[in-house]
Amino acid sequence: MLPAQQGYDRAITVFSPDGRLYQVEYAIETVRRGTIAVGVKSTGGIVIAVEEKPRRLQISDTIQKIFQVDDHLGVAAAGYIPDARSQVENARFFSQSNRMMYDESVEVEAVAKHLADQCQQFTQYAGVRPFGVALIIGGVDDGGKGQLFLTDPSGTYISYDAIAIGAGSEQVTEFLEKSYKPGSMEDAAVLAAAAIRIAGEETDTESHIRMARVSADNRRFEMVPDGEVASFAAKAAAKYPPRSG
Amino acid sequence: MLPAQQGYDRAITVFSPDGRLYQVEYAIETVRRGTIAVGVKSTGGIVIAVEEKPRRLQISDTIQKIFQVDDHLGVAAAGYIPDARSQVENARFFSQSNRMMYDESVEVEAVAKHLADQCQQFTQYAGVRPFGVALIIGGVDDGGKGQLFLTDPSGTYISYDAIAIGAGSEQVTEFLEKSYKPGSMEDAAVLAAAAIRIAGEETDTESHIRMARVSADNRRFEMVPDGEVASFAAKAAAKYPPRSG
Amino acid sequence: MLPAQQGYDRAITVFSPDGRLYQVEYAIETVRRGTIAVGVKSTGGIVIAVEEKPRRLQISDTIQKIFQVDDHLGVAAAGYIPDARSQVENARFFSQSNRMMYDESVEVEAVAKHLADQCQQFTQYAGVRPFGVALIIGGVDDGGKGQLFLTDPSGTYISYDAIAIGAGSEQVTEFLEKSYKPGSMEDAAVLAAAAIRIAGEETDTESHIRMARVSADNRRFEMVPDGEVASFAAKAAAKYPPRSG
Amino acid sequence: MLPAQQGYDRAITVFSPDGRLYQVEYAIETVRRGTIAVGVKSTGGIVIAVEEKPRRLQISDTIQKIFQVDDHLGVAAAGYIPDARSQVENARFFSQSNRMMYDESVEVEAVAKHLADQCQQFTQYAGVRPFGVALIIGGVDDGGKGQLFLTDPSGTYISYDAIAIGAGSEQVTEFLEKSYKPGSMEDAAVLAAAAIRIAGEETDTESHIRMARVSADNRRFEMVPDGEVASFAAKAAAKYPPRSG
Amino acid sequence: MLPAQQGYDRAITVFSPDGRLYQVEYAIETVRRGTIAVGVKSTGGIVIAVEEKPRRLQISDTIQKIFQVDDHLGVAAAGYIPDARSQVENARFFSQSNRMMYDESVEVEAVAKHLADQCQQFTQYAGVRPFGVALIIGGVDDGGKGQLFLTDPSGTYISYDAIAIGAGSEQVTEFLEKSYKPGSMEDAAVLAAAAIRIAGEETDTESHIRMARVSADNRRFEMVPDGEVASFAAKAAAKYPPRSG
Amino acid sequence: MLPAQQGYDRAITVFSPDGRLYQVEYAIETVRRGTIAVGVKSTGGIVIAVEEKPRRLQISDTIQKIFQVDDHLGVAAAGYIPDARSQVENARFFSQSNRMMYDESVEVEAVAKHLADQCQQFTQYAGVRPFGVALIIGGVDDGGKGQLFLTDPSGTYISYDAIAIGAGSEQVTEFLEKSYKPGSMEDAAVLAAAAIRIAGEETDTESHIRMARVSADNRRFEMVPDGEVASFAAKAAAKYPPRSG
Amino acid sequence: MLPAQQGYDRAITVFSPDGRLYQVEYAIETVRRGTIAVGVKSTGGIVIAVEEKPRRLQISDTIQKIFQVDDHLGVAAAGYIPDARSQVENARFFSQSNRMMYDESVEVEAVAKHLADQCQQFTQYAGVRPFGVALIIGGVDDGGKGQLFLTDPSGTYISYDAIAIGAGSEQVTEFLEKSYKPGSMEDAAVLAAAAIRIAGEETDTESHIRMARVSADNRRFEMVPDGEVASFAAKAAAKYPPRSG
Repeated sequence: MLPAQQGYDRAITVFSPDGRLYQVEYAIETVRRGTIAVGVKSTGGIVIAVEEKPRRLQISDTIQKIFQVDDHLGVAAAGYIPDARSQVENARFFSQSNRMMYDESVEVEAVAKHLADQCQQFTQYAGVRPFGVALIIGGVDDGGKGQLFLTDPSGTYISYDAIAIGAGSEQVTEFLEKSYKPGSMEDAAVLAAAAIRIAGEETDTESHIRMARVSADNRRFEMVPDGEVASFAAKAAAKYPPRSG
Repeated sequence: MLPAQQGYDRAITVFSPDGRLYQVEYAIETVRRGTIAVGVKSTGGIVIAVEEKPRRLQISDTIQKIFQVDDHLGVAAAGYIPDARSQVENARFFSQSNRMMYDESVEVEAVAKHLADQCQQFTQYAGVRPFGVALIIGGVDDGGKGQLFLTDPSGTYISYDAIAIGAGSEQVTEFLEKSYKPGSMEDAAVLAAAAIRIAGEETDTESHIRMARVSADNRRFEMVPDGEVASFAAKAAAKYPPRSG
Repeated sequence: MLPAQQGYDRAITVFSPDGRLYQVEYAIETVRRGTIAVGVKSTGGIVIAVEEKPRRLQISDTIQKIFQVDDHLGVAAAGYIPDARSQVENARFFSQSNRMMYDESVEVEAVAKHLADQCQQFTQYAGVRPFGVALIIGGVDDGGKGQLFLTDPSGTYISYDAIAIGAGSEQVTEFLEKSYKPGSMEDAAVLAAAAIRIAGEETDTESHIRMARVSADNRRFEMVPDGEVASFAAKAAAKYPPRSG
Repeated sequence: MLPAQQGYDRAITVFSPDGRLYQVEYAIETVRRGTIAVGVKSTGGIVIAVEEKPRRLQISDTIQKIFQVDDHLGVAAAGYIPDARSQVENARFFSQSNRMMYDESVEVEAVAKHLADQCQQFTQYAGVRPFGVALIIGGVDDGGKGQLFLTDPSGTYISYDAIAIGAGSEQVTEFLEKSYKPGSMEDAAVLAAAAIRIAGEETDTESHIRMARVSADNRRFEMVPDGEVASFAAKAAAKYPPRSG
Repeated sequence: MLPAQQGYDRAITVFSPDGRLYQVEYAIETVRRGTIAVGVKSTGGIVIAVEEKPRRLQISDTIQKIFQVDDHLGVAAAGYIPDARSQVENARFFSQSNRMMYDESVEVEAVAKHLADQCQQFTQYAGVRPFGVALIIGGVDDGGKGQLFLTDPSGTYISYDAIAIGAGSEQVTEFLEKSYKPGSMEDAAVLAAAAIRIAGEETDTESHIRMARVSADNRRFEMVPDGEVASFAAKAAAKYPPRSG
Repeated sequence: MLPAQQGYDRAITVFSPDGRLYQVEYAIETVRRGTIAVGVKSTGGIVIAVEEKPRRLQISDTIQKIFQVDDHLGVAAAGYIPDARSQVENARFFSQSNRMMYDESVEVEAVAKHLADQCQQFTQYAGVRPFGVALIIGGVDDGGKGQLFLTDPSGTYISYDAIAIGAGSEQVTEFLEKSYKPGSMEDAAVLAAAAIRIAGEETDTESHIRMARVSADNRRFEMVPDGEVASFAAKAAAKYPPRSG
Repeated sequence: MLPAQQGYDRAITVFSPDGRLYQVEYAIETVRRGTIAVGVKSTGGIVIAVEEKPRRLQISDTIQKIFQVDDHLGVAAAGYIPDARSQVENARFFSQSNRMMYDESVEVEAVAKHLADQCQQFTQYAGVRPFGVALIIGGVDDGGKGQLFLTDPSGTYISYDAIAIGAGSEQVTEFLEKSYKPGSMEDAAVLAAAAIRIAGEETDTESHIRMARVSADNRRFEMVPDGEVASFAAKAAAKYPPRSG
């Protein structure tokens, strides 16, 4: 933090002389400090996963960073998680309204755009701070097409085949770019498990992986059972051995 | 307090260059300076307890830091207690509304989420400061399942088997992690009493312990009578002797 | 006042890095600088008293620091007295509303909680400063039980058997803790007179004492006539002789 | 003005570390810099008087610092006179409303309390500055009792037998305390004239005295004719000779 | 401008430690920098005059600093002229409303008080700056009595026989005090012309004088034709020769 | 920019100790930096002209700095042109409303006053900045009289025979004062062309001149065709040769 | 960034002493840092193009910087893209309303003016920051005339034959000025492709070019298929060889 930046990080989000919005960049820094979250698209749907490090007595069935938004749609978050809940609430309401008005499930991109639009508003109007969270929005659209979107505090939304956010996401993204190819749901789950392990730089992080999926078959969001996650993690360790990742 | 942080602690809660919300962290510091509060889950319900240090002429039957929210639901607080009252009022209203709308008792998690959502709002919008209090929300859900949630100024809420907040909570949490196992309501009460004694680092703090419980049998919040509390404290002293705690 | 505190005492009440709300602490400092006010509970009701130091030509029957709120309920204030009037107005309205809605007199604790809740709001929302006054709220509830509550700028409210606020309240509280025991209304009045003399550290302050009481018999707030006050003060001088106090 | 006080005198009125409201104290300083105003109660009513120093071509029948509020009620002001007009307007409206609602003249104390309450509000809410004026409110209540109240920027109101505000009020108050005794309307007028001369520290200020009275007989506010004022001033010079005052 | 004053001249108008409202004093400084405006009362009505220094190609029949408010009422301004227009607009509306409600022309003092009250408001509430203009309000009331009032940014209004505002008003006021005596409308016009010449300290300023009058006979505001003004100026030069003024 | 001025150029427009409104002066500086605009009155109507320097591929029939407001009325602007559009929009609405309410064309002065009034408001109320543009408002009133008004950010409006604003306007004004005399529409157009050339200090600027006129004959605003403009520019070069201007 | 500029870049957009609006200039700096966007008019319609640099796993059919607004109208953006979405949403709504109210397609200039007007508002009112994006708005009006407009954060809008914005736009504009002549749609597309290559200063950027067009024939906005873009890029490389560009 240079002293020269002091003027640009208060009250309302304003431009710095070099055309930057520091509050937005600081909010993105909050995302960078969050634990890793990944999303991987397969030919048969999408997989999202996060690393959760519960304390000893924490009840692990309350998932903190993966949220179901609608039947066919979920979110994985990295950054300031209370903000993620606020956005998820918004997404649920938007999704429900869509069902009521058009009698059909909302498109994944529509949700991503809606949330990103709110993010943008929060960078332009006084009286609020930007959101401190990035979201991977994954789901399967009406025609059975899997969709994976990223939204961030700036209000940007982009579609990806595979994406990682949070601490260590740079090296995980590198790994995904090298390793990703369209495949089965299991391929996607294994790749996601491998990605989270890389972020953790440990060999035994699999127990902390929380994973959810929406398969194109039934278009239903479901948490992946712990046993399956463990099996994916084991396969990941075999397929993408440490140091060779 | 470093001079470089001066810009981030005023007016509206904003991000610092390293992606932190200082006002939220300062509010959590308020919690850390509060007297200890603990919650312990048993197979037969939940126990919450606080240490109260009334002055000589204070009437001790006005409890300051434990609040009943609904028949089956109570709260123990650490930090800025007037803020706790504000949140409890909110929780009571939410709980009542739930009864009226759905004709059934509200779920403990719903209350925790509702309060945490308000905490989040108070970190994002201008014109308010964050809450300076953390709450342990304990109750028994409709099916007889005991629930224990923590909310804090950031807007986070997490479910625990046993949890401590306030001054000395780090060492108490360590103690709880070592000593906790699911047990009877009495086990939970004894563990809670021991936890508070550890925070006080004294041998005669039992007289200051205020305890409440919701048993799964009747799903009724009740303050534990002073005599019982004394007996739990005595058992705690025997079971978890000082220095070996 | 250290320079490091400069940022925390303006505009809206915000947390300092060590988790304190300076504006609230400064408001409590205002209370500490006010003249003494005391409240003493007896078996037959409650007594409240203040020291008033009218200037020579001031009309002494306009009492500045004791206020009747309802038939059975009064207030003694220390600190910024115009703020006390604002809170008393609020209490009267609350008390009247209660009578109208429930056709019974409001409970003393309900008034204390109501005023404390407003105090809390004024520490959390922008656009107002906290109240600069503490109140001793005394009355007799429906069943004939005397009640004595303290509220302060932080939004705290606590029930006491005997309590002192304002300049010199530390030593007066010490005296009360040593000397208080449940007794008759006269005992309470004598103790209150003694307490105020101690705060004044003079032998002839009795002429400045203003006293009010609510007896359990009739549940009617009344100012104690000057003659009676003088007699209580004389007995106080005999019972609690200077320097031995 | 010490640099350390800089933070406490802006925007909204806030507490300083030593529990003071600087903006209120500065507003009272404005009062202290105003020209003298006095009020004296007699057995037969009340007298208020001010010193006015009109410039050469100023029309002297526009009185600047004495205002009629109602038939039985007037005000003398010291400090920032435009603020006085704002408060007088408020008092007139309040007084009229009272007549309309209860079909009787408003009590002098009710007006004083009403204005003081507004003063208090202006020290607590953002978006306004405190009033920079003190008022002596004099009148005769329904039963024929003369009343004299002081309000100041803090929101305090106090009843007096005789009172002075503005530049030189300390020595005038001393004089009043020494010389005041209940007497006839003429006694009061002579005392008021003497008081203003003392503030002026000149022998020929009588020509600048503006005086008003409300006699208990008719309960009618009236300006005292210049001739009478001159006669009172002459008597004052005789009764309270300079240097012996 | 001393550094110590820096805090008192921003945002909302607040008191300085010595009880002054700097923003108001600065606004009065704006008046002092404006070109001269004068008003003179005669036995037969009132005269107001200003100095206007139009640029070469400016159309001189658009008068900048004298405004008609109503049939019997006009205004001369010194200071920030766009603010004068805003106040004149207000005065016209007030005057019209008066006619409509009471079916009679508004009193000159009522207009002065109304404008001064608005000035006062603009020194007390946040979100506006004080007006930067002083007005000489001249007219003839219903009974044929000429009236001359001054309003300034502080919200003060005072009645005068003759008054000057703007640059050089100190010496002009001195001149008016020495030379003014009640006389005919011509006497007043000649005195006004002389006053403006003094402010200009030139011998040939008469061509820049703009003058208006309201005569008691017809109670009609009218601009004085340029020819007449020149004749008054010539008489002024004769009657009050330069250096002897 | 002197450091001493720092306090006066932010948030709301406030007075400096020497009675100036810096934000207004800075806005006028914006006008001074704009490209030249001129207006010239003739016996047969009015001419307004600006210099536009379109980039190579800019479509030149979108005129940036001359705007038609109504049939008989147009505007030439210098300064921050987007602000000019905002004011022109306002003028069009005002002009239309006038037609609808009174069934006649609005007077040129009424439009000038209306826009200047808005400018004044934007210097007095918080939440907006002053306009950064000056306008030359030219038109022909109902009786066939040409009118030329200038409005600026301060809220001043003045009528001129010929006027220039923007960069170089000082020397152009000098030129206009020397050269202007009432003449034909062609005389006015030639003078306007010459004025713009002087501002450009070049001999070949005529191609950049955009000119509009309202002739008294038809009271219709029209852009002067490029050919005519070129011919006026040629005559200007002959009549007012460079260096002799 | 000079320290002297610190005061002008916060909260509300205000003028600097030299008459500049720094926040607007900083917002324009944001545009300058964006990737290149170009628009080229042909005799048969318009072409807009941007450079997109998707990351490896980004789904390329979600176009980030070209937006369809209406059947006959699209937008290419450079700068802070989330702001572009906000403006596009606004444009769509405006365009739809126009269709509904007038039953015809909106004119391209009307959309440009509407968006530019909003930009201007965001530079004048408090509580928002200016938009950080420039837009090239291209379409074909009802009569078949192609239109190309630029809007920027200042609220300026200008019509061009060919225009470039974003990083490298200075040299691209130079290239366009040298190379542009009215031609076929293919000519325009080839020129646009060449322009983007110049901005990239690479030989193989054609794969990143996204292009859209509205042909005068059908007045339908359409994305140019990737194959066609590649062919235009190849022709561009031949027609405007590197280094000779």
